[in-house]
Amino acid sequence: MRDTVRIDGERFWRTVEHSGEIGVGRPGGLKRLALSEADREMRDQFVAWCREAGCSVWADQLGNLFARRAGSAPTLPPVVMGSHLDTQVNGDRYDGIVGVLAGLEVIRTLNDRGIATRRPIEVVSWTNEEGARFSPPMVGSGAFAGVYEVEWVKARRDDDEIRLGDALERIGYAGSAPVGGRPLDAYFELHIEQGPILDAQGVDVGVVVKGYGVRGFLAEVRGETAHTGPTPMDARRNALVGAAMLAVAVNDIGWRYHATGGKATAAWLLVRPNQPGILSDWAQLVVDVRHENLAVANSMAAEVREAVADSARRSRCEIELVDTWNYGDERFDPDCIGLIREAAKRLEISTLDIASQAGQDAYHLTKVTPTAMIFTPCRSGITHNNNEHTDMPHTVPGVNVLLQAVLARANR
Amino acid sequence: MRDTVRIDGERFWRTVEHSGEIGVGRPGGLKRLALSEADREMRDQFVAWCREAGCSVWADQLGNLFARRAGSAPTLPPVVMGSHLDTQVNGDRYDGIVGVLAGLEVIRTLNDRGIATRRPIEVVSWTNEEGARFSPPMVGSGAFAGVYEVEWVKARRDDDEIRLGDALERIGYAGSAPVGGRPLDAYFELHIEQGPILDAQGVDVGVVVKGYGVRGFLAEVRGETAHTGPTPMDARRNALVGAAMLAVAVNDIGWRYHATGGKATAAWLLVRPNQPGILSDWAQLVVDVRHENLAVANSMAAEVREAVADSARRSRCEIELVDTWNYGDERFDPDCIGLIREAAKRLEISTLDIASQAGQDAYHLTKVTPTAMIFTPCRSGITHNNNEHTDMPHTVPGVNVLLQAVLARANR
Repeated sequence: MRDTVRIDGERFWRTVEHSGEIGVGRPGGLKRLALSEADREMRDQFVAWCREAGCSVWADQLGNLFARRAGSAPTLPPVVMGSHLDTQVNGDRYDGIVGVLAGLEVIRTLNDRGIATRRPIEVVSWTNEEGARFSPPMVGSGAFAGVYEVEWVKARRDDDEIRLGDALERIGYAGSAPVGGRPLDAYFELHIEQGPILDAQGVDVGVVVKGYGVRGFLAEVRGETAHTGPTPMDARRNALVGAAMLAVAVNDIGWRYHATGGKATAAWLLVRPNQPGILSDWAQLVVDVRHENLAVANSMAAEVREAVADSARRSRCEIELVDTWNYGDERFDPDCIGLIREAAKRLEISTLDIASQAGQDAYHLTKVTPTAMIFTPCRSGITHNNNEHTDMPHTVPGVNVLLQAVLARANR
Repeated sequence: MRDTVRIDGERFWRTVEHSGEIGVGRPGGLKRLALSEADREMRDQFVAWCREAGCSVWADQLGNLFARRAGSAPTLPPVVMGSHLDTQVNGDRYDGIVGVLAGLEVIRTLNDRGIATRRPIEVVSWTNEEGARFSPPMVGSGAFAGVYEVEWVKARRDDDEIRLGDALERIGYAGSAPVGGRPLDAYFELHIEQGPILDAQGVDVGVVVKGYGVRGFLAEVRGETAHTGPTPMDARRNALVGAAMLAVAVNDIGWRYHATGGKATAAWLLVRPNQPGILSDWAQLVVDVRHENLAVANSMAAEVREAVADSARRSRCEIELVDTWNYGDERFDPDCIGLIREAAKRLEISTLDIASQAGQDAYHLTKVTPTAMIFTPCRSGITHNNNEHTDMPHTVPGVNVLLQAVLARANR
């Protein structure tokens, strides 16, 4: 009978649409920043839905929310599904959200059919995946996987100098459960692709086989303040110009690798004192490069370092890389990937092997449990934007694959 | 006897050093932002000094401070000296300040010698010359000259959304006198050069014969938000990159005109939403070009417009020049310049004809009265920076020239 179980697509989509009314942002979009009032409202709704579905629900000390459906062998580690419910400032209704609500729908479907599983099944919503309010992103899952210390995460501050830990207390989701440190059997994350490939090729489900190699850099530029008027060009050390040169050079690197799918981004820039009458003596710039081939990603990173030296020389500023980070090298689990392929085949759903280009909570989870991801199509690959779009027919196949894969894993 | 009158250099410099203790900033510098508590303290001190010197003192409705020494023909329009007492965020002890305190020293010297003048003599300190707290700069003198409406100036806001008019009330310097609208006989402004020429050539006094032509632009860049990860290079419209391209291109324009003293500056940049995970859809950038030759300044401005089009094309963003401004075309008065030359000759002080490269309150005053400027040397031309430096021996000659020129004009 297992093969024929399918989710209730209408119910699932009504749930997604209900979420799309909490924290409304620009037309069609959401502004549901981590630990905001809108996030609290969404969490309250999610907890209510999970309790209605018979789950036990709890938050850990970082507000990661877990909902558990018991298994017949309750001491076995659970199979976990999930993603995140927070959004960007000009965010969207699907990124992360469909992954959490798909997990809920899987549990509702098992309840409807009276299907018991051997292992417990959990749905999780990770805190502050987006990093739009508190930097860095993916801190909830990162702390769960032991990448970040809990106290360090709580000490992150938003632009108004509010600590993440205080914001969490304020919305009432600072739980008492430890963060991580317990065994999971596996982690499955369904997510919109956030790229154009599935949409362009008309494929229902992406089987994520790897991440894009991401190499990130925080560059600090040091120049000298001086009057914008009289200071001769050859006496200037304008940190704004040093940062701008690096931003342009990094963008050029992206174009050089464009043919093989490489990207390079100048994403965030701060300049001080940044006054019209004065040359700035300080700037910080976040840049990153991404490529599916890790060796190529490393070559692009080497070009960033050359661009730093060249921009420093041309602007007469000092430019130092004060922080660097790598991700996307993580390996997804062949067994979990196999369960996804088998489920799709059984359901006669088309699949394409695909690489994840964005950062994902699942990357962190690979460090502590067998992990795999399912991608669903989004229109033209537009995301992190109120014009992000997908619909029920393009999402339900992925959720059915999730259901089947999790069911198989939970009965192992 | 007139020819032998000279200021008290030691007293003058003690006054400058006293000012340098009010609103201390980085080592050796000042942070005395317009209408701050430090500005209030400096104004209180200046008012006290002027009253001690027997002047009548008043503020107009924008806090421009006037101190008047009576003339024997009290109904004649006054000869006015002055500059400003506010500084940049990382400001300095001399820029503007020596011009105001030189005026005070001229009056003190006339008092010492019991010299009466036919016309009244006034010293003025203009409000918010720097524009470091409230943009644009030079609003006090601008409103006096009818360039800005008083109510418009009061409505300018600082970064904390405080209105200029409210800040003025708060420090108690919102006077009742109308802003401008009364005849002046002439305006003389002494100012540090804010450039390296006098220092390099070992000349005591610069006779300012003209301004550098300044052509300023506020560029607005419009792109599209999208995820920094998956979005292909050819689908990106990153406003940060569009603005960075324009900043670099403007800097390149400066270098092309460097040999003839041209400058081009990218001075101020704002990016939104400016988040690490997202391409930005909006940026604003202030740029300007400057050249002594007005026709060349106009050519540089034309190149800025080409750079705007080119940066828009390459970044796939829209870039619009939403505001433009010109200054430095103003003409100083030949008669007033003549009085400065004669004074220097009589005192055997070396002079050099020079063009002002910075914006100046005096530019606005040219619209309503015969105006001239005297420059004094500053070390290496460094300014708008706590490393700005000059000293008594390099400043006193200019103040003696000011004294002689003002005395001649006031007895006409």
